[in-house]
Amino acid sequence: MENWDGKEGTSQIQFADQKQEFNKRPTKIGRRSLSRSISQSSTDSYSSAASYTDSSDDETSPRDKQQKNSKGSSDFCVKNIKQAEFGRREIEIAEQEMPALMALRKRAQGEKPLAGAKIVGCTHITAQTAVLMETLGALGAQCRWAACNIYSTLNEVAAALAESGFPVFAWKGESEDDFWWCIDRCVNVEGWQPNMILDDGGDLTHWIYKKYPNMFKKIKGIVEESVTGVHRLYQLSKAGKLCVPAMNVNDSVTKQKFDNLYCCRESILDGLKRTTDMMFGGKQVVVCGYGEVGKGCCAALKAMGSIVYVTEIDPICALQACMDGFRLVKLNEVIRQVDIVITCTGNKNVVTREHLDRMKNSCIVCNMGHSNTEIDVASLRTPELTWERVRSQVDHVIWPDGKRIVLLAEGRLLNLSCSTVPTFVLSITATTQALALIELYNAPEGRYKQDVYLLPKKMDEYVASLHLPTFDAHLTELTDEQAKYLGLNKNGPFKPNYYRY
Amino acid sequence: MENWDGKEGTSQIQFADQKQEFNKRPTKIGRRSLSRSISQSSTDSYSSAASYTDSSDDETSPRDKQQKNSKGSSDFCVKNIKQAEFGRREIEIAEQEMPALMALRKRAQGEKPLAGAKIVGCTHITAQTAVLMETLGALGAQCRWAACNIYSTLNEVAAALAESGFPVFAWKGESEDDFWWCIDRCVNVEGWQPNMILDDGGDLTHWIYKKYPNMFKKIKGIVEESVTGVHRLYQLSKAGKLCVPAMNVNDSVTKQKFDNLYCCRESILDGLKRTTDMMFGGKQVVVCGYGEVGKGCCAALKAMGSIVYVTEIDPICALQACMDGFRLVKLNEVIRQVDIVITCTGNKNVVTREHLDRMKNSCIVCNMGHSNTEIDVASLRTPELTWERVRSQVDHVIWPDGKRIVLLAEGRLLNLSCSTVPTFVLSITATTQALALIELYNAPEGRYKQDVYLLPKKMDEYVASLHLPTFDAHLTELTDEQAKYLGLNKNGPFKPNYYRY
Amino acid sequence: MENWDGKEGTSQIQFADQKQEFNKRPTKIGRRSLSRSISQSSTDSYSSAASYTDSSDDETSPRDKQQKNSKGSSDFCVKNIKQAEFGRREIEIAEQEMPALMALRKRAQGEKPLAGAKIVGCTHITAQTAVLMETLGALGAQCRWAACNIYSTLNEVAAALAESGFPVFAWKGESEDDFWWCIDRCVNVEGWQPNMILDDGGDLTHWIYKKYPNMFKKIKGIVEESVTGVHRLYQLSKAGKLCVPAMNVNDSVTKQKFDNLYCCRESILDGLKRTTDMMFGGKQVVVCGYGEVGKGCCAALKAMGSIVYVTEIDPICALQACMDGFRLVKLNEVIRQVDIVITCTGNKNVVTREHLDRMKNSCIVCNMGHSNTEIDVASLRTPELTWERVRSQVDHVIWPDGKRIVLLAEGRLLNLSCSTVPTFVLSITATTQALALIELYNAPEGRYKQDVYLLPKKMDEYVASLHLPTFDAHLTELTDEQAKYLGLNKNGPFKPNYYRY
Amino acid sequence: MENWDGKEGTSQIQFADQKQEFNKRPTKIGRRSLSRSISQSSTDSYSSAASYTDSSDDETSPRDKQQKNSKGSSDFCVKNIKQAEFGRREIEIAEQEMPALMALRKRAQGEKPLAGAKIVGCTHITAQTAVLMETLGALGAQCRWAACNIYSTLNEVAAALAESGFPVFAWKGESEDDFWWCIDRCVNVEGWQPNMILDDGGDLTHWIYKKYPNMFKKIKGIVEESVTGVHRLYQLSKAGKLCVPAMNVNDSVTKQKFDNLYCCRESILDGLKRTTDMMFGGKQVVVCGYGEVGKGCCAALKAMGSIVYVTEIDPICALQACMDGFRLVKLNEVIRQVDIVITCTGNKNVVTREHLDRMKNSCIVCNMGHSNTEIDVASLRTPELTWERVRSQVDHVIWPDGKRIVLLAEGRLLNLSCSTVPTFVLSITATTQALALIELYNAPEGRYKQDVYLLPKKMDEYVASLHLPTFDAHLTELTDEQAKYLGLNKNGPFKPNYYRY
Repeated sequence: MENWDGKEGTSQIQFADQKQEFNKRPTKIGRRSLSRSISQSSTDSYSSAASYTDSSDDETSPRDKQQKNSKGSSDFCVKNIKQAEFGRREIEIAEQEMPALMALRKRAQGEKPLAGAKIVGCTHITAQTAVLMETLGALGAQCRWAACNIYSTLNEVAAALAESGFPVFAWKGESEDDFWWCIDRCVNVEGWQPNMILDDGGDLTHWIYKKYPNMFKKIKGIVEESVTGVHRLYQLSKAGKLCVPAMNVNDSVTKQKFDNLYCCRESILDGLKRTTDMMFGGKQVVVCGYGEVGKGCCAALKAMGSIVYVTEIDPICALQACMDGFRLVKLNEVIRQVDIVITCTGNKNVVTREHLDRMKNSCIVCNMGHSNTEIDVASLRTPELTWERVRSQVDHVIWPDGKRIVLLAEGRLLNLSCSTVPTFVLSITATTQALALIELYNAPEGRYKQDVYLLPKKMDEYVASLHLPTFDAHLTELTDEQAKYLGLNKNGPFKPNYYRY
Repeated sequence: MENWDGKEGTSQIQFADQKQEFNKRPTKIGRRSLSRSISQSSTDSYSSAASYTDSSDDETSPRDKQQKNSKGSSDFCVKNIKQAEFGRREIEIAEQEMPALMALRKRAQGEKPLAGAKIVGCTHITAQTAVLMETLGALGAQCRWAACNIYSTLNEVAAALAESGFPVFAWKGESEDDFWWCIDRCVNVEGWQPNMILDDGGDLTHWIYKKYPNMFKKIKGIVEESVTGVHRLYQLSKAGKLCVPAMNVNDSVTKQKFDNLYCCRESILDGLKRTTDMMFGGKQVVVCGYGEVGKGCCAALKAMGSIVYVTEIDPICALQACMDGFRLVKLNEVIRQVDIVITCTGNKNVVTREHLDRMKNSCIVCNMGHSNTEIDVASLRTPELTWERVRSQVDHVIWPDGKRIVLLAEGRLLNLSCSTVPTFVLSITATTQALALIELYNAPEGRYKQDVYLLPKKMDEYVASLHLPTFDAHLTELTDEQAKYLGLNKNGPFKPNYYRY
Repeated sequence: MENWDGKEGTSQIQFADQKQEFNKRPTKIGRRSLSRSISQSSTDSYSSAASYTDSSDDETSPRDKQQKNSKGSSDFCVKNIKQAEFGRREIEIAEQEMPALMALRKRAQGEKPLAGAKIVGCTHITAQTAVLMETLGALGAQCRWAACNIYSTLNEVAAALAESGFPVFAWKGESEDDFWWCIDRCVNVEGWQPNMILDDGGDLTHWIYKKYPNMFKKIKGIVEESVTGVHRLYQLSKAGKLCVPAMNVNDSVTKQKFDNLYCCRESILDGLKRTTDMMFGGKQVVVCGYGEVGKGCCAALKAMGSIVYVTEIDPICALQACMDGFRLVKLNEVIRQVDIVITCTGNKNVVTREHLDRMKNSCIVCNMGHSNTEIDVASLRTPELTWERVRSQVDHVIWPDGKRIVLLAEGRLLNLSCSTVPTFVLSITATTQALALIELYNAPEGRYKQDVYLLPKKMDEYVASLHLPTFDAHLTELTDEQAKYLGLNKNGPFKPNYYRY
Repeated sequence: MENWDGKEGTSQIQFADQKQEFNKRPTKIGRRSLSRSISQSSTDSYSSAASYTDSSDDETSPRDKQQKNSKGSSDFCVKNIKQAEFGRREIEIAEQEMPALMALRKRAQGEKPLAGAKIVGCTHITAQTAVLMETLGALGAQCRWAACNIYSTLNEVAAALAESGFPVFAWKGESEDDFWWCIDRCVNVEGWQPNMILDDGGDLTHWIYKKYPNMFKKIKGIVEESVTGVHRLYQLSKAGKLCVPAMNVNDSVTKQKFDNLYCCRESILDGLKRTTDMMFGGKQVVVCGYGEVGKGCCAALKAMGSIVYVTEIDPICALQACMDGFRLVKLNEVIRQVDIVITCTGNKNVVTREHLDRMKNSCIVCNMGHSNTEIDVASLRTPELTWERVRSQVDHVIWPDGKRIVLLAEGRLLNLSCSTVPTFVLSITATTQALALIELYNAPEGRYKQDVYLLPKKMDEYVASLHLPTFDAHLTELTDEQAKYLGLNKNGPFKPNYYRY
């Protein structure tokens, strides 16, 4: 789940620069740190709503434990298989809010569109992912799974998956070495070779490229969810090195609108409340960037009675901000007066030390954008400033004159760090992933070449339609006469590709 | 100014079918009716806010009058040249809200990007068009102009233009024959041949195609604003018959968002109030279609305290409606209980006689969509129903049991018929047209082929930027470092083409 | 229909000062102007949505005409009895939106709570008033009626009432002398003496006090609707001169919230659009005063995308403005930057010449407050400024340097002058008046003394309940157990008197 | 902090019934349970945002511990005096958001309006209360304090107060016996007798009445904040037993609007998110009751894209709900379809077992109203239903067919249990309390009698004005001329007492 408002710039991520680092293969024994850093997204801190059992956990590394599930299998590596029951409960709760996947499962009683599929996955391991994996299983696939982030795994969910027979290799608080070891355990198996990849961030794809390039001969396609991963795929494609079709599910309409606009509309309030207990009414807020993320933040804060200013570089988004009722300013013009600064740009150094110096006492600073470079947090690590951790994810940075600014999540993504993502949003992403896997796996020879594809609009529409029953929403059907008049197929797609929604 | 929410279907407009009708050339003397019907959009009724002088006008046809402007020219045909002063005042008022064109004029003091351009235009003739024409003049162009709609001409504005030397051929209430005669007078001139076309609806382009195809040898390009006209151009292009480059300004971002989302957000309230004086608070409304037009209508009505239901055929738009807080229903489910029905689909027969039969007493029915076929008004022309015109644009249709429904504008576009379009919206369209003309006129040989083009994103951004000063909005500029990080040029374009805004 | 936000100050209206002026009785012949000015509210200009017939009217004074209705009666004086049919249609339309009065009529088929009542009324004469009068008739009352405003009478409605037998004395464009003559004709009748007064502004009450004080012996009570009239009654009461009970219906909850908050929420948009066709999105607006009227204006403009600033003198209302998301400023701080200035204070000289001098070009200035003194319009009548009437109710005031400000309705009430009041709002007021008449007329001896009363809360609740069916709203009833728990009667009243809603 | 929407009914709380129970005096040794139940509000569960130290605490009762602060005093009883430093940090943070009290302190450098005051207090013990107490100290008062709720004390704050010399007797998790023991320790002191009471819930007042009635001879007044406590005072007053003046600060405008409307607008979202991580967009919600609390909940949920239905018993509030855009229904009509049920009535059994039986799977049920009787939770304690505690404050109640409803906080107040109250809201209440104490303490003999008073409007306005600087809000001052015109004092009060805001 990454945010993107169209200005995201990850051009600094260079596959080329990283080639050599991967010649050193991680050994199972040595566990020395890999010289190559894992992708940024895989180390972003991540909060999870429900983690009942972590505090009492022992400190032994899962890699050193001998664990078996109740059926005697030990083809997994999780924190504590005994937590399976807790995890199962979380999964059951998630199932109730993921109607689309449950609908796919029901369908799968008749047909198994993924029969024969061997999927290796690398995503956040949460209850929602578990629902996805068990759905893929119900559709006929075999799965092996690792985590795409060293902090985000819910141990009890991983345990529940392991208990029900999924080879899962993930735990909360992996080291970098653990991270790659887990991925390797997913793909480097005797007698099993993946034919589909589901990736989030590109690390799994990268690993196979570097270590097991021959595997691609059997692989029918890659489904990638994240901005970063998609960017890497486009670069591979541009360089002529992409050797299987890939599906960019990040840019599907439903994902964009839900993960960005709607999800940020909800999570900005939640993130601010949980960290600061602030009152929104009457507060002056400046939101940097008016892409989908910024639009969501602005809408929510305005609705709750805040006075919102917007900064933008793009005149079209700027004009939208104006028409939506926000004063468009340069950050300098309002920096002395605002109570909250929120970055949503995908850019870097949007909030500089100079801005931070001029903020008023108690100003809250946080980031909803893409990476942790939007606020120049590094510039605050100077001797004259005192840092005081007042709560989890909340630092007071104190100036010599006593002025404090309240920095949230050290400038990392607020909604990943300090709020939870509604299951419903994750349901949309997970359903899109499942359909993309089905599409690529079943596509007739030649439909997809060695390139990066957007999800066919019809499937985007299908994902949406699977989520309508949640709202008890009733779609209207075209009559034959109307379909003819509009020149449309009655079952869609209903819009040209360039339609903006 | 036409609405379009992506589902518009004008496939019934067939160039092919109309070939023969144009062999009969209108004679200047005969004034017999042309057998060919003019385009639908050119006969839509059209209200204008300010028309001071019409009521006292005489009934003589302008074509029979001998008129001269104060400089002695008679190369025009308007209702009454003496109304020029009134029109000039309207133009001056409009200038105050069209800052972008005024900014272009200022620039033109140095360079004349349209020097040598001979533009023939066919658009609504309003104060805003006058500001555009006089701007084109200031940029160096010569212009000749006709009206694209037989009702929409503001006579006093046409007079003011004629007085200041523009050959304008237009008046309110033209006959079909007048319509073509006016167009012909624009292009069929001794010693003057157009090299640029600015069209709205495609009738002018069509006329030249049929009558003076050789003119295209000198024409550098066509700029077309309307859905209908763009559709015709794409058909020409598909048929291999488009012989000059054409610019589709209808689908530019700024036009789409302003003409549809923002403009409808404002005009739906205005249209309903002016016709019915209804109170919005607590009223139950069903909006058919959740494209840009529907989104605008829903947002405004919800904001004013109405309870809004939405119908949709497209599951993605449907899901957006849900997330935005609207119950998604089939029309049948709510038709008995709603106070207002608004169509915004671009489809036909969305509201059928059966629906109309089931509506409750006093239900208001109106259309904000594309054409007048969305409500099956024809089905109400049956003997058992009584029509009562209670105000201009407001009919009561009365059932035998006394039930009345309130039909606005006889099902034609409410915002064209019963409200006014804010000058600011028209300013955006006019600026886009001016820039498209400049682009096509100055494009180096070969940049544009015989095809239909979208406005380059950079120009779309430029139009937006020219309108920011109206809001005293201050754009942020990228630093060199940021531009590099994002991989963007500091001056834009700032987004990929598929960006949805 | 007057606005009031709690700060209204009519202390300048002095009964004492006006004593002498009324010794001169208007003669039917002389028609010379009375030296006493009629109340301010009776000369406020007033627009009416539907007036079909005025333009073609002859110029003869109604007082000089001999007219008879179809039943031969000539006990009325209206512009033109022949317009009765047009007026009847308007009344029928109004009936459809006044469900509460129609419900009272239905009830009246059984009981006639106003049997024997002789009501003399002085209100605006509109279709809605006609529905009220005919309801009072259905409830058993005899009525005689005059207009409370010299401009507001709808002639065709007055004709319809006269045709159906109501002695109505009113027309649009009365002189001051006509005004008092009409009132006199209502009360000064052989063989008929009123026993109830329904007044709007206090002029009728005043007239009887001065001319026919003995009439009060038979009068059971006064129902007064307006701020001004209520103020006069309280002054009479304080001076010990009020000799019958009076009901202040102005301060009933439903009237306050509807006439002010909700009605202004709707009419501010309508008034601005009809006069200026402006776009609301992105406009900067300052609203002076955050009482009910200001709250309504602010809510509507914010909802339509304007950026709204508020000025206030009361810290509680100011804090509400803050919490509702508006920047609280002094007018000076924003006067140079705003696009619109709206006064809603009830105060005077809120917008001074100094403010007007500093406004930017094209700034719109208007008044939604109580009287026309909020904007110091008089200060604009100086030689260096040019006034230009650009539309009805719209003046451009032009400074020597060319700056124009757009003054609406010459600073009088925008919503009375430039928009229409929804029938539904008027229905609430009319129903409240009817119930207040019934209450006073039927009250047992001694329940009401010679004082000014607020409507009993239970009747306020009853008015509200009569309007719920319009919204198909279903009220929940308390169970016996719940009523006991809450210590409430199941039928209300449900709130203590000080409850703020 | 209690909610009240005007329909609150605490008539079941009977002082009379409780007389006998209090003859048994708690002994310091015995610690046997008192037969009398403490007030309901004192046992409501209460969450606190920041409680760093509780988990590691020992289990010894504070009453059994020997503790001294750094100055050697042991006149206090808190959980652990060593937590003082943590508590001080929380107090410092709170000070930053309580500008009004800090402003009073600044003033107090000159005058000490509470010099000689001996205040005994019984309130929630939080950082905000600490700021209040230290402000009272700075104003010249001596204070002794107990907790009004057995769960709500922040131990580290109590420690910080004890460390800085305040005799505080309170800890989190008191028994009922502890509760009364603490109160007794505040008032039953050698050589110190209170002359002012600050109470929240009435338990302290009650205790003094029953145990030390003679103390009232020296007591100048009672300041009471809660609905319950105010209700008790009115009963005492009615019974002629109130022997000192009392100030009802619960019904001050600022408290009502902030604690109810604005605070609930913010806390409903927070409470739902923290417990369920649900998405608001598109969810169907029914809110029972449209008083201030219901208005706040509805506004927030609508703003976040939920579809909100309202139930009401009062037709005026019902009409407001309609005008604000909510469908007014009976609970039965929507109970099968809604995703969330929220009670805000002050009534009991609003949600019955029958309703609960008909809710759909996963429906969330919670209470924002006054007491925990609004939802008939008791009816769910039947054998066929399974309760499953899924998170803190979240129960799944499972029907035999597998249907689950999600019950929050076991039907107790959601915003007390599952969200935090913004400091700013508490600042308003605390400031009002401080000003009420000053007013009563300094009032000249005879201004206040043995009755219950509302805060003078001028002080209400003063509280508001002290909070405006937080918003950088600039109040406009009346000119002399304007004040005269309005008949107002330039410094207020600005509104009549019945003004509704």
